[in-house]
Amino acid sequence: MSGWVKIAGLGPGDAALVTPEVSDALAEATDVVGYIPYVARVAERAGLTLHASDNRVEIDRSQHALQMAAEGKRVVVVSSGDPGVFAMASAVFEAVENGPENWRDLEISVLPGITAMLAASARAGAPLGHDFCTINLSDNLKPWGLIERRLRLAAQADFAMAFYNPRSKSRPEGFVKTLEILREECEPGRLILFARAVSTPDEVLNISTLAEATPEMADMRTIVIVGSSRTRIIERQGSPILYTPRFTPE
Amino acid sequence: MSGWVKIAGLGPGDAALVTPEVSDALAEATDVVGYIPYVARVAERAGLTLHASDNRVEIDRSQHALQMAAEGKRVVVVSSGDPGVFAMASAVFEAVENGPENWRDLEISVLPGITAMLAASARAGAPLGHDFCTINLSDNLKPWGLIERRLRLAAQADFAMAFYNPRSKSRPEGFVKTLEILREECEPGRLILFARAVSTPDEVLNISTLAEATPEMADMRTIVIVGSSRTRIIERQGSPILYTPRFTPE
Repeated sequence: MSGWVKIAGLGPGDAALVTPEVSDALAEATDVVGYIPYVARVAERAGLTLHASDNRVEIDRSQHALQMAAEGKRVVVVSSGDPGVFAMASAVFEAVENGPENWRDLEISVLPGITAMLAASARAGAPLGHDFCTINLSDNLKPWGLIERRLRLAAQADFAMAFYNPRSKSRPEGFVKTLEILREECEPGRLILFARAVSTPDEVLNISTLAEATPEMADMRTIVIVGSSRTRIIERQGSPILYTPRFTPE
Repeated sequence: MSGWVKIAGLGPGDAALVTPEVSDALAEATDVVGYIPYVARVAERAGLTLHASDNRVEIDRSQHALQMAAEGKRVVVVSSGDPGVFAMASAVFEAVENGPENWRDLEISVLPGITAMLAASARAGAPLGHDFCTINLSDNLKPWGLIERRLRLAAQADFAMAFYNPRSKSRPEGFVKTLEILREECEPGRLILFARAVSTPDEVLNISTLAEATPEMADMRTIVIVGSSRTRIIERQGSPILYTPRFTPE
C-alpha cells in the first residue's frame, strides 16, 4: 500500500465548517500530525495514531509526516483554518525541498479549509468584500521592517487588511507599532474588527475605530480586520453589520 | 415562522468542498436565489423553490431575497467560493442599507466557503503561504486607475497576489495592462499560476513566469496567482509544487 501526505485545514473551530474532503481524509488516515490543540480536534479511533507536537516545531513535524508517508503510512497533517495561509503547507514544502530526493515523488496534496479571516469576515458581515491584503504580524520569521513597509503600502493602496497573529505574549510591542503606523496612514474613524476565537464557544466580536482601538483588544486568538476607507457599518438591533461595498467611485 | 437570509458559499465546484453548515442551510431553505450556474449546483427537492437569475443583477436578487425573508421564507443566497470575497455578501448588505427599515432586523448571516484563490493555491502547493493581497481585476465597479495603483503598491510591498475576474470577453485589455504593469514592477522570472476551473472536471493548472505569460492564459474562469519575490518551484515527477516559504531574511 502506498503512503501519502494530505495537509488539511480544519477550519476555525466549528465542526460544521470542516469540509467533507477533510473529514474523508481523516477517515482514511493511519496517522495524524499537528500542533497539540489542532490534533485534539480529531476524534480518536482504532487504527489511527495521533502525533501531537508543540508550536514552533513545524519542520520537525513535516519531516516526521513525510518519513511516515515514505514508509507507506497515510498521513494527515492538520492545520487550523486553511493550511495554505500561515500554516503547515509551506512548512511541509520547505521540508520536501530540503529533504531526501524520494520525498519529492510522494503523493502530497493540500486540502483547503475555511481560513480564520474569512470566518471572521462572515461573522461581522463582509468587510473583505472588496480588494484586501493578508499579513502575518508575527516577526518570528521575517524582519519587522518588512511588516512596516507592507502596512504602509497596503494603507496607501486603500486595501482592507486582515492580520493573523497580531499579538503574542513574548512580543506585544508589534501590534502597538502596527496601530501607530495605521494612525499615521489612515483617518481616525477607520473601522477595525477584532474577532476572537470565531466559531468556537469563546467567540467575541468587537468593532472599533483606529482612534479608539487599543493593543489589548487583540491576542493570539484574534483576527484583526482593518477596513478600507470605503468600509461601512449598518446599525440595527443586535450586532451591527460591517461591510465593504462593491462599488468605488472615480 | 420567521424568515431568514443565509448568504452561503458553495466553494469552487467540487461537492466535497461544500461545508456541512452550507449543506444544512440548503436542507432547511424554502427558497434559493443566485446566479444561474450556481443555483444549478443545488439539488432540487419538494418544498424548495430555485430562483436563478443572470449575472449583473446582484442588487435585484438581493432585494428579492430580503423581501422573501420579510415574508417568512427561509432564503439561501448562493455564491461560488466564499460569499464575502467578490460575491453576494456585499451586494445583500448594500440592499439592506438602502432598503426599508424592517430589513435591518431580519436574521441575516454569512456562511463562509472555500474561496477560489485558496482552492487554486492548494492545488498548486502553497503560493499564498506568506503575506498576500487579493484584487478583483474587473473595472466594472471601480476605476481602472485604482486597480493600477493597487497593483504597483502591492508589487512594491512584495505581496503575492491573487486576481479574481482577470479577463472578460467585453474588456480583455485590463489583463494586458496588468501584465505590463507587473513587468515594470517585478523581475522577469517572477512565477505566475493560472488556475482554471479548480476542483471541476475542467480544471487546468499552468505555471509560467512574468516574461512568458500571455493574456490568453487567463479567462473569466481563471484565478491568477502571482508569487512574491520569494515564491519557489519544486520540480518533480508529475506536477511541480509552487510555494512561498515562511521565512524572509533581513
